[in-house]
Amino acid sequence: MSTAWTSRYALRTKGITSSQIRELLKVTQKPGMISFGGGLPAPDVFPVARFEEACHKVLSEQAPSALQYGETEGYRPLRELIASNMTRYGIKAEAENVMITSGSQQALDLIGKLFINRGDRVLLEAPTYLGALQAFNVYGAEYESVPIDDDGLRTELLEKPLRSGPKFMYVLPNFQNPAGTTLSEGRRHELVLLADRYGIPIVEDDPYGQLRYEGEHLPPLIVLDRENLRRDHGYSIGNVIYLSTFSKTLAPGLRLGWIVAPPDVIGKLTQLKQGADLHTSTFTQFVAYEVARDGFLDKHVKLIRKIYGERRDVMLQALQEFFPPTVTWTHPKGGLFLWVTLPAGIDMQALFKSAIKQNVAFVPGDSFYANDGPGNDSMEGSRHMRLNFSNAAPEQIREGIRRLAAAVKSQLTGTTVRLKLPLEV
Amino acid sequence: MSTAWTSRYALRTKGITSSQIRELLKVTQKPGMISFGGGLPAPDVFPVARFEEACHKVLSEQAPSALQYGETEGYRPLRELIASNMTRYGIKAEAENVMITSGSQQALDLIGKLFINRGDRVLLEAPTYLGALQAFNVYGAEYESVPIDDDGLRTELLEKPLRSGPKFMYVLPNFQNPAGTTLSEGRRHELVLLADRYGIPIVEDDPYGQLRYEGEHLPPLIVLDRENLRRDHGYSIGNVIYLSTFSKTLAPGLRLGWIVAPPDVIGKLTQLKQGADLHTSTFTQFVAYEVARDGFLDKHVKLIRKIYGERRDVMLQALQEFFPPTVTWTHPKGGLFLWVTLPAGIDMQALFKSAIKQNVAFVPGDSFYANDGPGNDSMEGSRHMRLNFSNAAPEQIREGIRRLAAAVKSQLTGTTVRLKLPLEV
Repeated sequence: MSTAWTSRYALRTKGITSSQIRELLKVTQKPGMISFGGGLPAPDVFPVARFEEACHKVLSEQAPSALQYGETEGYRPLRELIASNMTRYGIKAEAENVMITSGSQQALDLIGKLFINRGDRVLLEAPTYLGALQAFNVYGAEYESVPIDDDGLRTELLEKPLRSGPKFMYVLPNFQNPAGTTLSEGRRHELVLLADRYGIPIVEDDPYGQLRYEGEHLPPLIVLDRENLRRDHGYSIGNVIYLSTFSKTLAPGLRLGWIVAPPDVIGKLTQLKQGADLHTSTFTQFVAYEVARDGFLDKHVKLIRKIYGERRDVMLQALQEFFPPTVTWTHPKGGLFLWVTLPAGIDMQALFKSAIKQNVAFVPGDSFYANDGPGNDSMEGSRHMRLNFSNAAPEQIREGIRRLAAAVKSQLTGTTVRLKLPLEV
Repeated sequence: MSTAWTSRYALRTKGITSSQIRELLKVTQKPGMISFGGGLPAPDVFPVARFEEACHKVLSEQAPSALQYGETEGYRPLRELIASNMTRYGIKAEAENVMITSGSQQALDLIGKLFINRGDRVLLEAPTYLGALQAFNVYGAEYESVPIDDDGLRTELLEKPLRSGPKFMYVLPNFQNPAGTTLSEGRRHELVLLADRYGIPIVEDDPYGQLRYEGEHLPPLIVLDRENLRRDHGYSIGNVIYLSTFSKTLAPGLRLGWIVAPPDVIGKLTQLKQGADLHTSTFTQFVAYEVARDGFLDKHVKLIRKIYGERRDVMLQALQEFFPPTVTWTHPKGGLFLWVTLPAGIDMQALFKSAIKQNVAFVPGDSFYANDGPGNDSMEGSRHMRLNFSNAAPEQIREGIRRLAAAVKSQLTGTTVRLKLPLEV
């Protein structure tokens, strides 16, 4: 039914459509469904007892401030804790460089609001995080995509798009969503130097950085930027805005993320956040601070690494066992996702439907490509699947991959393979 | 220090400056300060024990969903509770008409994002809620202001601005922020009919509607709109978007508000909210639901009415007792604020400084006027003060008004009156 409002939508909302993933997640609520679709943490790792203690402490000792309006920048002890925790990754930040956001998604929205004029180009990885596209689209962003391989963004292809003067570059260096790949150390240096040479700033999105299951931690771009630039210019020019979140280490239901940026950028972002939601929930900030403090977060992250690492191994093992040899996949060293490449010509819509029928869900790859005109990678996307390995239990992962393999094989051969389902899944 | 980012701010952020109120609230943190400045609820009315029970229940029974990602529209039981609670104010809404927002401020931001193109005009009350101006400014709104009097928006002045075709009208009918005035029943009917005649939709902001300390509840615009229009057109055209919040009835630290709108508008807002913060904290939504359910919210609102009603009376009494007869003020029937009018020619900056020196704070009125060009009311604003009566305890209110009266008198006479401060305030 149309109303007095219907004819009044702003131009910027044209082309904004409901995300395929969101619609898809509704399908995956079906009982019996094994979902590799969302990016959901395992509820088994939520530190519930610690949350209970924290809520009790906050409400019995600090209710007058924990339930009251708070500062737009965020709860100061939490900003200090974040700043101090990041030093172990080499990130030197003071509380003044840290703004709390309502999840990392709000950081992307505020960055879009602060920097993107209609028609501005953003340089992205192909594929990239769908939520960033949704946040930037509203502000009229256009995109220039650079493909990735197993070592992340292909920096040898960067010069031309950098020369064309994008507003900024948006990169996920660690265990990228959707592909699960990690930017190699050599390429990190290259990327930061190129960005400096062409004067293009970088938004570094790092939601999964702490969730590494093998290999050594690599230096964040914000660290290399400061080191290189201090060496070359004699000072740090703050070329990188760094984003992270508690969604994958504590709980996404808190909606707590943060931005690390130079003070002038934090100042502007604070003004925009004030108009957007005044501030993030003081109560969840106080609770998160009580949960995370005194080294608990570090211990807890170790537990998550162990559990998700095992699940990743189970998925890799099952893919090896059940999938046909014409199918390949990435080997993520951390994070929540891996990326499957099917033979060219696969009918992804048909595969998706067939998988849903067999009670297993994934996200088709084309959702993760910016639509940046001819020569883009959207055709490329149509032969990929993103699989999440953090949410389902190991035995479900194995069973889900078995079902998915059957759907894949039936698509590849054109024959329907009937699966014998176990009684309990 | 300028960085690679500094030259890259989007056009829309020009003229976005830190709110005077936010800066002012920092001053009011001073020990000994009695602040009538913010719009803060009294922490004494936070139902802390009920929050403790709710957190315990949610974490022991529902942690896997309460800490997980949730639906963008909001937690369904909370949307149903809100829909059902609103029926007692005559608002007929289903859960489908209700979207949860990260405070009412996010509702204003999403409405700006959905409807305002650069240069679109929004029809406002003068004075109006500063946060709405901050939210709409970013999207390039221009304004047309209609003055208010003791009966709210002067509807007899509405036809001309309505004819000029603003995108929508933004109105606070109950105990308006900043003036504390209430739109009379006659004017409500007039406003809704005029809006229908000229096809201009209405955003009705009602954060304080439940906090009425005297007189009878008046029908919300959204109710009149549906009744009138069903009678005249045979159907409801959904001309009104209605906003409210738990910030004044439960706790602002939750950051929980809501929007009531026709389903197509809710659908679009949901897509924009997804890009803005995915969803509002599931944890605070589950907790708010447990706190509010089973009639608790109604009982609690009665307690708030009693406490704030007394504080309003103390402030009105003290104004009467201490203020010179050339000063007038509104008599709010509810809400958190009253509006003081000083004789023309008062030096508001000097008065503000003098008040701060005497450890009492207020918000100068000019913050609450849209800057809509020559003939506007910004000069008018410079002789007003907004005073909040919900936050300070009764004895502090009396003492604060005594100090403020001294500052006012000294400005009016040009003589500095030295106050004898009591030892304890």
